[in-house]
Amino acid sequence: MSITGKSETRPPRLRLGMVGGGRDAFIGGVHRIAARIDDEFELVAGALSSSPEKALASGRDLGLAEDRIYGSYKEMAIREARLKNGIDAVAIVTPNNVHYEAAREFLKRGIHVICDKPLTSTLPDARKLVKLAENSDAVFVLTHNYTGYPMIRQAREMIASGKLGKIRVVQAEYPQDWLSRKEEGGENKQANWRTDPSQSGAGGSTGDIGTHAYNLACFVTGLELDSLAADLDAFVPGRQLDDNAHVMLRFKGGAKGMLWSSQVAPGNENGLRLRVYGENGGLEWKQEDPNYLWYTPLGEPKQLITRGGAGAGDAAARVSRIPGGHPEGYLEGFATIYAEAARAIRAHDAGEAQPDDVVFPTVQDGLAGMLFVDACVRSSKRNGAWISV
Amino acid sequence: MSITGKSETRPPRLRLGMVGGGRDAFIGGVHRIAARIDDEFELVAGALSSSPEKALASGRDLGLAEDRIYGSYKEMAIREARLKNGIDAVAIVTPNNVHYEAAREFLKRGIHVICDKPLTSTLPDARKLVKLAENSDAVFVLTHNYTGYPMIRQAREMIASGKLGKIRVVQAEYPQDWLSRKEEGGENKQANWRTDPSQSGAGGSTGDIGTHAYNLACFVTGLELDSLAADLDAFVPGRQLDDNAHVMLRFKGGAKGMLWSSQVAPGNENGLRLRVYGENGGLEWKQEDPNYLWYTPLGEPKQLITRGGAGAGDAAARVSRIPGGHPEGYLEGFATIYAEAARAIRAHDAGEAQPDDVVFPTVQDGLAGMLFVDACVRSSKRNGAWISV
Amino acid sequence: MSITGKSETRPPRLRLGMVGGGRDAFIGGVHRIAARIDDEFELVAGALSSSPEKALASGRDLGLAEDRIYGSYKEMAIREARLKNGIDAVAIVTPNNVHYEAAREFLKRGIHVICDKPLTSTLPDARKLVKLAENSDAVFVLTHNYTGYPMIRQAREMIASGKLGKIRVVQAEYPQDWLSRKEEGGENKQANWRTDPSQSGAGGSTGDIGTHAYNLACFVTGLELDSLAADLDAFVPGRQLDDNAHVMLRFKGGAKGMLWSSQVAPGNENGLRLRVYGENGGLEWKQEDPNYLWYTPLGEPKQLITRGGAGAGDAAARVSRIPGGHPEGYLEGFATIYAEAARAIRAHDAGEAQPDDVVFPTVQDGLAGMLFVDACVRSSKRNGAWISV
Amino acid sequence: MSITGKSETRPPRLRLGMVGGGRDAFIGGVHRIAARIDDEFELVAGALSSSPEKALASGRDLGLAEDRIYGSYKEMAIREARLKNGIDAVAIVTPNNVHYEAAREFLKRGIHVICDKPLTSTLPDARKLVKLAENSDAVFVLTHNYTGYPMIRQAREMIASGKLGKIRVVQAEYPQDWLSRKEEGGENKQANWRTDPSQSGAGGSTGDIGTHAYNLACFVTGLELDSLAADLDAFVPGRQLDDNAHVMLRFKGGAKGMLWSSQVAPGNENGLRLRVYGENGGLEWKQEDPNYLWYTPLGEPKQLITRGGAGAGDAAARVSRIPGGHPEGYLEGFATIYAEAARAIRAHDAGEAQPDDVVFPTVQDGLAGMLFVDACVRSSKRNGAWISV
Repeated sequence: MSITGKSETRPPRLRLGMVGGGRDAFIGGVHRIAARIDDEFELVAGALSSSPEKALASGRDLGLAEDRIYGSYKEMAIREARLKNGIDAVAIVTPNNVHYEAAREFLKRGIHVICDKPLTSTLPDARKLVKLAENSDAVFVLTHNYTGYPMIRQAREMIASGKLGKIRVVQAEYPQDWLSRKEEGGENKQANWRTDPSQSGAGGSTGDIGTHAYNLACFVTGLELDSLAADLDAFVPGRQLDDNAHVMLRFKGGAKGMLWSSQVAPGNENGLRLRVYGENGGLEWKQEDPNYLWYTPLGEPKQLITRGGAGAGDAAARVSRIPGGHPEGYLEGFATIYAEAARAIRAHDAGEAQPDDVVFPTVQDGLAGMLFVDACVRSSKRNGAWISV
Repeated sequence: MSITGKSETRPPRLRLGMVGGGRDAFIGGVHRIAARIDDEFELVAGALSSSPEKALASGRDLGLAEDRIYGSYKEMAIREARLKNGIDAVAIVTPNNVHYEAAREFLKRGIHVICDKPLTSTLPDARKLVKLAENSDAVFVLTHNYTGYPMIRQAREMIASGKLGKIRVVQAEYPQDWLSRKEEGGENKQANWRTDPSQSGAGGSTGDIGTHAYNLACFVTGLELDSLAADLDAFVPGRQLDDNAHVMLRFKGGAKGMLWSSQVAPGNENGLRLRVYGENGGLEWKQEDPNYLWYTPLGEPKQLITRGGAGAGDAAARVSRIPGGHPEGYLEGFATIYAEAARAIRAHDAGEAQPDDVVFPTVQDGLAGMLFVDACVRSSKRNGAWISV
Repeated sequence: MSITGKSETRPPRLRLGMVGGGRDAFIGGVHRIAARIDDEFELVAGALSSSPEKALASGRDLGLAEDRIYGSYKEMAIREARLKNGIDAVAIVTPNNVHYEAAREFLKRGIHVICDKPLTSTLPDARKLVKLAENSDAVFVLTHNYTGYPMIRQAREMIASGKLGKIRVVQAEYPQDWLSRKEEGGENKQANWRTDPSQSGAGGSTGDIGTHAYNLACFVTGLELDSLAADLDAFVPGRQLDDNAHVMLRFKGGAKGMLWSSQVAPGNENGLRLRVYGENGGLEWKQEDPNYLWYTPLGEPKQLITRGGAGAGDAAARVSRIPGGHPEGYLEGFATIYAEAARAIRAHDAGEAQPDDVVFPTVQDGLAGMLFVDACVRSSKRNGAWISV
Repeated sequence: MSITGKSETRPPRLRLGMVGGGRDAFIGGVHRIAARIDDEFELVAGALSSSPEKALASGRDLGLAEDRIYGSYKEMAIREARLKNGIDAVAIVTPNNVHYEAAREFLKRGIHVICDKPLTSTLPDARKLVKLAENSDAVFVLTHNYTGYPMIRQAREMIASGKLGKIRVVQAEYPQDWLSRKEEGGENKQANWRTDPSQSGAGGSTGDIGTHAYNLACFVTGLELDSLAADLDAFVPGRQLDDNAHVMLRFKGGAKGMLWSSQVAPGNENGLRLRVYGENGGLEWKQEDPNYLWYTPLGEPKQLITRGGAGAGDAAARVSRIPGGHPEGYLEGFATIYAEAARAIRAHDAGEAQPDDVVFPTVQDGLAGMLFVDACVRSSKRNGAWISV
């Protein structure tokens, strides 16, 4: 993905539609930038809001052709599937409770889906979506975007290649502070839907950010969770979903972990952090400083591996755009998910096997996240009992 | 620029051409991503290499229409100026010695120019380009990209509003290590042209990175340089241009400064750093961690102002895309220059005055950079004597 | 304690004896330096080893008078109690299993005791020692030395004064890496006794370092633990005591916490870290950078409070020696425990009440630590069930 | 100096006197703690103030015997020289203008001198003191205390052993902010004498802290200064001595450097920092985080060498007391100067050669500092002309 020395002719851009992401939305705008950065997609259609007026206005904001601004995702799916140059893929960026229904309409028509996380708002929906995706003739990509950071790829490669030896301990956390007070119930659209069980599902901090930390822990280490014990709280009076979660983890094979997610920890913006310790070394990474990976080979000085610097390997280089010392950020990491999706989609549409080095979070990862949230909620209700996932 | 809550209908994208930036180039790719991020430009034409074959191949790589892939910038300027939907603006991303000649062809035809820095390779060229730009009916934007970082805008706003009081001391530095050994003379295209006086001009580290530090110091503080004393070295045997520069600065009004640029400082990737101290407070910023600005009101604890966090004001918010805690990086900062250029160009083409809050480096800033390099070289030749600029 | 502007005549130094701390020991040497730094104590007697030969050699190393080098602590207690200028206080710096018996001999003779932590090696011993100490006419000080760091005092004062509002979440951790491999069973005396249940007690990492993290969490927040759930591991084959502990905490009043102690986390030396979050703000502190305290008032920029700098209050100043920017370290923090002990002892011996601002860990804190370890071990044996303490 | 595994019998403590350091003084208290930490000295006599009343009160504060509290340093020198158990050494901790006269009285009587820096307040005094010291039968130690930090010793050892190759660039700085406003002329005794030419000499920030940065640069690199060009300012109206200095350095052999000292840089407490770059690697160190040394072998990841951790060698270990991860601070670094002095004094008094590994700043280093200040002042007066030293 490096911009230096590229010399391959680029195929035409993939045609992208979007569900959700209209005026006042947040993550839709992120998806659009992410889709543009590596120039693999072109946004050509949208059902950008459940309100038809807002959908229209939002589509015009973005310069979509009038006849490709839709009032509903279903209408968009039906019509785009029939168009000669209909969309190749759709980005679903609605609140969680819409993911399943929307994805279904596209998957069953063979339109590739790039879906925001968590997978759905309920576990049954998640299980149905897994079946749908696996039985469809389409690629399904879940935007656990942090997996796109180059230093996360670097960490994953180092662990897979055995640099740390057998993993013993995994410490994952994702603290925020934006819900330290009662933000919901007013004008803050983000706070409203993210604290509403009917839109978000059973998990508050666990679903919104805990799933990211959990996904990242598994993505980097390759470990599978065996069971967990959780203690969930809603510290802000009246809040319906957890805003703080303490979780102990037992992985298959004997590794242990802790996971903390919080939306009530003043001084934390998006403090996602992962630390992994094995028999022979340790790794530490922080989302807010994503271009740095700290590596300690046991008994040697700690090393600072930088994106693009000495010590960074192929897995990181493949998803980097610019040389070290010029930071790539959140949008670039997100863009990598789109770039990987493009590669998978192109291979699929050409009837080829997906290239070995294409890596992105799948519908199965989405189900794993839902099972994690479900287990957290159940464990906490049972006074922190260990729950197998 | 925030992606949340946008509700303005976007005008059609501006049509962009590019000079330079073909296969094996570096900064051209950066410009292309930067132009895409905020979706204000569409690349439609290119004279991407001085080699016609490479220009053709490079244009195809990028999916340009065959008839808008040009073998020379002059041909492109002539033809695009005649096209009904010819380019609105051109990005010039060649080695420094081509800037002047290329810019001239476009400016005189009223095509807006977005030019990489330093302005030119020689001071006479720079002076001519200033006249050309000022007399042309076109916008000229110089991509001193670091001015696009939100926390740089924040620092500038704080100083302009008097938070630091009268500025006393400015410490600017830009160390790198990639030229610690003799990299030139082989396959490293970047090393080759950047150490070659005929392509780069009289300054080595001073021109390539010292100008960035100097530009940033002036941009943030609003100070104007009075004179400087410089001690330049080429530590690597056989190197023709300085790879390390020590400079003392005297600003008009009495502030003093130091500037260090180096390409031979192992452990530094792009260590651009700015520290400003006034009567009532201090600011510190580092390019490799660009989302953080450290502010100390004299006699109070140091504060960490983050992009999008508490303490960040309008100037930063205007050039931010996403909330705090999710880092924006180099490409986003670069994109801000393009977004600002778009606003200036749209206003210009609509016959309106440039909006007050549009900020970008101008041809005059480019001349200031050339005068800085020239003064450094002359001072160093005269044993570090003070030279007025 | 500041060295500037002192103007009180200092009373004669207190006479100190020491049990343990001979050749090859570690913590004894720390105690001796700590006792000297503020010049409140003079070491005059010692039973420095359980081996009489080593005790003699060690006493000579330290320049003790021959007749005050003892072969056993009992002998020392008996004789010093009878001397006209016998020791005022004794430092007990043996492995844990000797603490109780040694302390008893001094306490019952009215000799003040400064005892290393954890309090004892068994819970029954701890309970007996509490009774002994409370019924004795002597001061008992436990060297949970981290409570002596100025920024810890600062944090405690800020929380007590309500700056953070009601505390919600406490994250404590103490990772190390020195036992990542099997170090015990050979020449490493520290590894040998610290992994041996007969000398250390039931807790490995929990007893050695987890108690520090737990003590600090309570000391800073003023919270009392209600119950905990723990998952303990001995990752190194053959190890008899836990080398990694994951613990969830429930405090009285509703605050929640996590505690992680580990001796198998490569890249961590003494990574004791405390983060506390309340309704109105958050605090973060790290032992390896002890002169910094990060404070975020909710909705404002994060502040860096430094020892001796703006923002630091009386509680920190009282235990600081030198101005800000010149770091005080571990030994100074440890010395503060001795300085506080001296004040308590002088007040006691003068028949005065202990000054209000004297703060040190007590025998009750020691018992709390033992109950913490016991609860961790019991919870872990019962598959992480919640255990009330 | 490590406290673990010591097994050498310690000789009796050296008897120490002190000139200056009475009530309201600062650095005297630091010297006393430093002298105690490693237990090599015992303070037994003092002429602690130029005011006899204050000298008496101050002596009593410290518990000195009445007959060894002196009203003047001369009286002390004369009497102590005659005593059978008179002082072995004297610490001179007065304002700079007293150093020479006081040192003379002790040196000529063969009493070892431990003198605060800078060496004197005038260059002629410095030259005379060098002769005196070199012709005396006594050890002379200058407390450039930062040379006692273990990671500074580590850096010095690494450079001496060739790890960095030939040194090219040295960046030294020492910013503070405590004189950002007019603090002198009132009750602030430290501000008063440090900004008064008659007590401090010709240098303000240059003499007080610039000499530290300069000394450290030379100590670590082994380089000798050839010439310098300086630009000095007194930013605070009415201030008589420089409070900000910008200096360019040329070392013998071709290395170049910059040095910045400032007392008007808000947000800096004691921001002494040294960065050294050679052909094969770079080192970075910061006084406020003294236990860390950053080392980058060219082309490899940056390494964090910690005091007591992997990567730290003998030179650091020799002046460390406790294992890594438990920070040693300013007082311990200062104590190392005393410990080294003790070794030198014991060797001298035993008629032995000074051990090879004893390292401390000498009277020659003091002269070098005075020459540095003198050159800075002269260069600045001559508009920053290069001055040979």
